[in-house]
Amino acid sequence: MPIYSAPTRDTRFVLHEMLKLDQYSGVPGFEEATPDLVDAILEEAGKFAEQVLLPLNQPAGAEGCAFENGTVSTPAGFKEAYDLYCEAGWGGLDSNAEYGGQGLPAILSTAINEYMISACMAFNTYPGLTHGAIKSIDAHGTDSQKDTYLPNMISGKWTGTMNLTEPHCGTDLGLMRTKAEPQGDGSYHITGTKIFITAGEHDLSENIVHLVLAKIPGGPDGVKGISLFIVPKFMVNDDGSVGARNDVSCGSIEHKMGLSASATCVLNYENAVGYLLGEEHRGMMAMFTMMNSARLGVGLQGLSQSEAAYQNAADYARERLQGRALSGPKNADGPADPLIVHPDVRRMLLTMRAFNEGARAMALWSALLLDLSHRATDEEQRQQADDMVSLLTPVLKAYFTDMGFTSANLGLQCFGGSGYIAETGVEQFVRDARIAQIYEGANGIQALDLVGRKLAANGGRAVRAFLTEIQEFIAGQQGDKAMAPYLLPLAGSTADLQEATMWFAQNALTNPDNAGAGSYDYLTMFALVTFGYLWAQMARAALDGLEAGGDDDFYQTKLTVGRFFAERMLPDTGPQLARIKAGAEAVMALDAERF
Amino acid sequence: MPIYSAPTRDTRFVLHEMLKLDQYSGVPGFEEATPDLVDAILEEAGKFAEQVLLPLNQPAGAEGCAFENGTVSTPAGFKEAYDLYCEAGWGGLDSNAEYGGQGLPAILSTAINEYMISACMAFNTYPGLTHGAIKSIDAHGTDSQKDTYLPNMISGKWTGTMNLTEPHCGTDLGLMRTKAEPQGDGSYHITGTKIFITAGEHDLSENIVHLVLAKIPGGPDGVKGISLFIVPKFMVNDDGSVGARNDVSCGSIEHKMGLSASATCVLNYENAVGYLLGEEHRGMMAMFTMMNSARLGVGLQGLSQSEAAYQNAADYARERLQGRALSGPKNADGPADPLIVHPDVRRMLLTMRAFNEGARAMALWSALLLDLSHRATDEEQRQQADDMVSLLTPVLKAYFTDMGFTSANLGLQCFGGSGYIAETGVEQFVRDARIAQIYEGANGIQALDLVGRKLAANGGRAVRAFLTEIQEFIAGQQGDKAMAPYLLPLAGSTADLQEATMWFAQNALTNPDNAGAGSYDYLTMFALVTFGYLWAQMARAALDGLEAGGDDDFYQTKLTVGRFFAERMLPDTGPQLARIKAGAEAVMALDAERF
Repeated sequence: MPIYSAPTRDTRFVLHEMLKLDQYSGVPGFEEATPDLVDAILEEAGKFAEQVLLPLNQPAGAEGCAFENGTVSTPAGFKEAYDLYCEAGWGGLDSNAEYGGQGLPAILSTAINEYMISACMAFNTYPGLTHGAIKSIDAHGTDSQKDTYLPNMISGKWTGTMNLTEPHCGTDLGLMRTKAEPQGDGSYHITGTKIFITAGEHDLSENIVHLVLAKIPGGPDGVKGISLFIVPKFMVNDDGSVGARNDVSCGSIEHKMGLSASATCVLNYENAVGYLLGEEHRGMMAMFTMMNSARLGVGLQGLSQSEAAYQNAADYARERLQGRALSGPKNADGPADPLIVHPDVRRMLLTMRAFNEGARAMALWSALLLDLSHRATDEEQRQQADDMVSLLTPVLKAYFTDMGFTSANLGLQCFGGSGYIAETGVEQFVRDARIAQIYEGANGIQALDLVGRKLAANGGRAVRAFLTEIQEFIAGQQGDKAMAPYLLPLAGSTADLQEATMWFAQNALTNPDNAGAGSYDYLTMFALVTFGYLWAQMARAALDGLEAGGDDDFYQTKLTVGRFFAERMLPDTGPQLARIKAGAEAVMALDAERF
Repeated sequence: MPIYSAPTRDTRFVLHEMLKLDQYSGVPGFEEATPDLVDAILEEAGKFAEQVLLPLNQPAGAEGCAFENGTVSTPAGFKEAYDLYCEAGWGGLDSNAEYGGQGLPAILSTAINEYMISACMAFNTYPGLTHGAIKSIDAHGTDSQKDTYLPNMISGKWTGTMNLTEPHCGTDLGLMRTKAEPQGDGSYHITGTKIFITAGEHDLSENIVHLVLAKIPGGPDGVKGISLFIVPKFMVNDDGSVGARNDVSCGSIEHKMGLSASATCVLNYENAVGYLLGEEHRGMMAMFTMMNSARLGVGLQGLSQSEAAYQNAADYARERLQGRALSGPKNADGPADPLIVHPDVRRMLLTMRAFNEGARAMALWSALLLDLSHRATDEEQRQQADDMVSLLTPVLKAYFTDMGFTSANLGLQCFGGSGYIAETGVEQFVRDARIAQIYEGANGIQALDLVGRKLAANGGRAVRAFLTEIQEFIAGQQGDKAMAPYLLPLAGSTADLQEATMWFAQNALTNPDNAGAGSYDYLTMFALVTFGYLWAQMARAALDGLEAGGDDDFYQTKLTVGRFFAERMLPDTGPQLARIKAGAEAVMALDAERF
């Protein structure tokens, strides 16, 4: 069975030593997040992931969900684990304290969600979707809606879903057909078919609160005529108890490449009773407010599967005896050397690890920015944090999930033929990770969001601030020779990013296809530069830690992995820039029928 | 159901217009391969793949093989398709005419195997393994062994396998434990357990001829003490009919990530009767002679799954209406534009296609070299062809299968969420393609073979000839402006490859880990340069074709796809060189326990 051990030491390093969380203790919600409490939560969450969730992952993946007569059964053990999860309050960590949450910052829930998802990605889709629905209702609901739904959703007694996709309408929500007809009593009748609804039907909770995008007849065409509705599986009685079944039913579940323990449902709405959430025709806006948080959550799936794959691959590489080191036997008394003596095996492991640790830093930084954008008392600080996290979110979502998949495959490769066998458990990481590149906005859409929307927003204010922050960091560190291995490659790649940004400014207005043709490379380049910046900050923190005289091995390892990133991963920005500047001509030249 | 149409036009372009097959008509075996015969074979093979194999692929993948009481059942339809395959003589196309084969060049069987594997990769593992066993017996068998086994194997009445791996022994065959004890009558008793044996047990053929690596007690340690044996599932009577069951049995089949319709068997040998094939203790040599051909076959799997993924993704991108073009509606009367208007969708499709067409050219060139290395009447021509194909084989195997997997994933991505659903059929390409990066020598091993063995062989004669050939081609074409988009990037990347080769020569002897740490990048760089060279040759042939005034669309498309490759794929050699020159230091710095 695959192993997993929550990387709490590394999380603590990022929170305390790199981000220096204690400097935010004045921000509302952060007062209680003392170092002791933070560390205790990390430890407890790690244990829960290792002891309760990890043993479920492989058997649940093999069993999958079952569909019969409109009901969905989750795999053996999910219900018991879900009850324990709710009892421990993991789902409500960063939810509104007024409704039973713990009101802690999102940076903490991000830290522990990484562990939970590493241990069992499929399990976490149920509380994960609920979390998004909670945030939507909290942000856009009436007091009565909040009173009705939030306490039971935050406790986990009820779960939630998000309903966007229809068979003919995925990315392009303007094509939506699901109708919401006002009934004159403030309620609506929702009719239509939604597909790919994660956790749309299951046996974990007493009720399921569907948030459904639909069109009110007579409204504007396209996305401007879409509204958001609360459609509970069971009607809620005035006393808050669960009443009659609403007219929403599960038509089937999908048989998927992976993540089979997460129910992906077809939901049929036939005059189901729904309640408007937020304003009429403003459903897309209501969804957008959740987007940064939801995309961070999907990005975490990439990191999590990569971390799980890394730990198993490293363990196997240390144990499996096969062949001899190029430089002569390292285990001369044994029949062969362990795989880890081979530079190419280390290349794979270090690539995974440099991604994992960089991604952990970026996820926690982004979560901090998300917190500050909501909670900071200073208007300018809120604005700056919102600018930055809006810029970083598509980058994080796409790069984390691309690299998560790549990394899970590197992990499989370390196992050789055994990696391809289901019993070993590592091919599941690959299959599970694959979906994250697609849902919550396919990665190509993230690239378009970055290039088409985020770069241009407010006259380029965010990207200017981002580049300035990096350049100021480099300038501030340049006196320290020990920082050179991190700063020099970062300066080069940051210059590439700046040049690419300028190129878009000059060439994309006249021909938007120039932006489209370079968007994916630009996003990946942006991610590399962000990682390079965070690795330089981690190197700084590690050098400071060494100077302070503690945990020598940890800091030396950190410096080495960072050097691997700077030497071997960051230089890819060169050809990315070349591709961007090649423009759209060759890409757009062929007629559709020539493909 | 997924579509597939054999790309016969492109194969003909490579064979006739780029490689100019007619210039080899003087080589034995090539006399009969007239353009008319070649084209007829391509057409017939294409039809067989499309009509007989394609309909099997998805249902067979869902059904998988079944194991019960030591017997393996292949999925519904496999037996009928196998009989048709044998009747048509597809398996014996390039086999020895003395024993019932057609004696045609391997370049032809390579061309048609691409189609067969695209249509159903799992099906082709059965004749594919047989083909390798046929070649081994033909090369190393006694006349009596050839008479006994070849006619039935070439006709397909019997199939074959290769038995290398044991539970503790994959890449490192020196650890092998399977024993072969001489019985004094020329036969041996084979005892041991072999795993991961493709087509090791099934219901397609009357007999299965296992080729088994084992150690004769008292022989040298390690790989120098390994011998190769013929171990038939059923003993063969003197009259050639099938007799008693031999003592080899199938213990189980593996449940795998993909390729479930190909039986991956545990085979238990308990004093099974075996016959030495070739010389005592020379089993590794006997296997090595098959290696280039076997690795070309696995490389084809990468190309084939990528081609299948491409055709389905292109079809979907033309049909699926979603969103609007960045430059304004292209299907203004419809509800949305087809996906193919989007530059980023085209980026994915063109990446797949530039790989596919480059890979087709490289596969057929390599097969031609393989033919010439065996069949050319001139000793020097044989030697040169053998040098070149030995150099190219690890590159082809690893790059084709890496890109085959990457490309299958790009195809899936074009489908969005639907791509993740089993019903659509494209996620199967991804799962099936994944194994090809591992078996027949994991891709990291291919990189070590290239850097550690092939570069150094004969004082670097092969790599020098390779670089000289490219430089001479560039010099010969430089007068033609139309060739500049292909030649300039090629010249730059070839210089990178030359510099990397020099760097190894200067830095790998003193520290072999420098070769190991850069081996993977070097292999990928080598592949890019090879593709760049072949794309330049294809551009030349397309320009000639245009001038000759035929098939304008085909040639223009070829020139555009080639330009995409030169502009957007070839420039990756820059950071590859940087990584190689970074050396082994950061890679080897960490102690094993720090991973």
